[in-house]
Amino acid sequence: MVLQVDRGKEMSKRPLDILDQVLNREPVIVSLKGDRELRGVLQGYDVHMNLVLDQAEEVTDGTSHRIGTLIVRGDNVIYISPSHNQ
Amino acid sequence: MVLQVDRGKEMSKRPLDILDQVLNREPVIVSLKGDRELRGVLQGYDVHMNLVLDQAEEVTDGTSHRIGTLIVRGDNVIYISPSHNQ
Amino acid sequence: MVLQVDRGKEMSKRPLDILDQVLNREPVIVSLKGDRELRGVLQGYDVHMNLVLDQAEEVTDGTSHRIGTLIVRGDNVIYISPSHNQ
Amino acid sequence: MVLQVDRGKEMSKRPLDILDQVLNREPVIVSLKGDRELRGVLQGYDVHMNLVLDQAEEVTDGTSHRIGTLIVRGDNVIYISPSHNQ
Amino acid sequence: MVLQVDRGKEMSKRPLDILDQVLNREPVIVSLKGDRELRGVLQGYDVHMNLVLDQAEEVTDGTSHRIGTLIVRGDNVIYISPSHNQ
Amino acid sequence: MVLQVDRGKEMSKRPLDILDQVLNREPVIVSLKGDRELRGVLQGYDVHMNLVLDQAEEVTDGTSHRIGTLIVRGDNVIYISPSHNQ
Amino acid sequence: MVLQVDRGKEMSKRPLDILDQVLNREPVIVSLKGDRELRGVLQGYDVHMNLVLDQAEEVTDGTSHRIGTLIVRGDNVIYISPSHNQ
Repeated sequence: MVLQVDRGKEMSKRPLDILDQVLNREPVIVSLKGDRELRGVLQGYDVHMNLVLDQAEEVTDGTSHRIGTLIVRGDNVIYISPSHNQ
Repeated sequence: MVLQVDRGKEMSKRPLDILDQVLNREPVIVSLKGDRELRGVLQGYDVHMNLVLDQAEEVTDGTSHRIGTLIVRGDNVIYISPSHNQ
Repeated sequence: MVLQVDRGKEMSKRPLDILDQVLNREPVIVSLKGDRELRGVLQGYDVHMNLVLDQAEEVTDGTSHRIGTLIVRGDNVIYISPSHNQ
Repeated sequence: MVLQVDRGKEMSKRPLDILDQVLNREPVIVSLKGDRELRGVLQGYDVHMNLVLDQAEEVTDGTSHRIGTLIVRGDNVIYISPSHNQ
Repeated sequence: MVLQVDRGKEMSKRPLDILDQVLNREPVIVSLKGDRELRGVLQGYDVHMNLVLDQAEEVTDGTSHRIGTLIVRGDNVIYISPSHNQ
Repeated sequence: MVLQVDRGKEMSKRPLDILDQVLNREPVIVSLKGDRELRGVLQGYDVHMNLVLDQAEEVTDGTSHRIGTLIVRGDNVIYISPSHNQ
Repeated sequence: MVLQVDRGKEMSKRPLDILDQVLNREPVIVSLKGDRELRGVLQGYDVHMNLVLDQAEEVTDGTSHRIGTLIVRGDNVIYISPSHNQ
């Protein structure tokens, strides 16, 4: 059913495919539940939106705290955004 | 079973199909859990209501903050609405 | 198993089938988690209780705020009620 | 596996089957998460404990507020009880 | 896989099987999320830990309130304990 | 897929298999959501981390309260630890 | 579908595979929901991100409390990070 719908709308972008475009590129911002925000280079993800972030830092009140490599469990994610947006 | 039900009520619109009608058109408003609101052009979605928003901004207390492209995890969504409604 | 049970109790109404009876009719009231309430004409739904509401408005403290068309994610719903009840 | 277990204990009552005994009879009390309580005649249910309540009213601080027919999403339910109990 | 593991440890008791031992016997205590506690005779359960309690009462601050028969939705349960323990 | 991964790392211990090593031995500590802590002899578990604890007690503010046998619903568990650790 | 996507991006790292690289090595930091943090040697994990931590300690307000071996239920995890990062 999903495949049928997708055939009819080539203009549509599937959310997880968009993540491919930012793999190993400029850092992304990951907004987490509980008012937490991470920034890092996206190195991988899976269907649950589990993420691998490299050179990650946690941003709190405008200051950032370096963490390094992170495996984030997907259910904490609110949104992911390429940071060049901002 | 779902298919049988749908055959009998052509007047019914399936929630996810409605999203097709606003793809790449006027911005939509996305109300999120935790009193957050996003506005942006819907570029894609999937069965979990994961969304791709382009030219997105977060609206807080009447002022908006530009973010750019966003991948929103569907479980945060309360409702989605075409913004021309308002 | 579900089918067997249903055969034995024709008087029972399945919750989602009840929604068919209010499709495109008088507005329904949708009570959401987090003390939010929506009112609108039900245009569609699916097995997750995702809803399409037309001519929707959000009701807060007795005053209503027009929104237009809404796609509501089902996991926010507490209950749905035909508004002529009230 | 479930079937094997059930064969060995005919005295056991499956929770959803108990709901059949109160269908279209005396009102039931439905305790909801978030300190809400509903009362009404159970007209139907499904495996998710989604419920159809008729002649429903919401009980708050000892006073009741008539609502009419309700479709309750099952994940809000804490317990269901025949009201003649009380 | 589960079966293989179980073969090797006959001393292990599966959580749901333990519930069989208290069916229709002395009352059990059911600790619920949100600091609620129920007490009653367990008449049935299913794989979701949905429970049927007979002669149930809700215990609040040391005093108990009779409810009668209850169908409890399993996702509210923290633990179940035979009351003779206490 | 899981099997392939496991073949390549014999040094890896699967979380649920670790529980076998503490079955019917020294008491374990079970940290629960909502700042609750249980202590007891693990008699069984299943894939959901539902647990059977014998000789269980609830520990609150350094004092312990005897409960006896407990069936704990797995979704409340934060972690499980052999108590000899401490 | 997942396999097709993976073929096209050999540079992508799957989140759970990254965990293999830190098995039985330097301690990892596990950030948990509810402002809790654990530190320990990762001895195993599964697809739910259930974890086995050895030589674990809980870190609270800069001081650490030794626990020993821990089985952590995956749904509590926010992120996992090799501690040499910090």
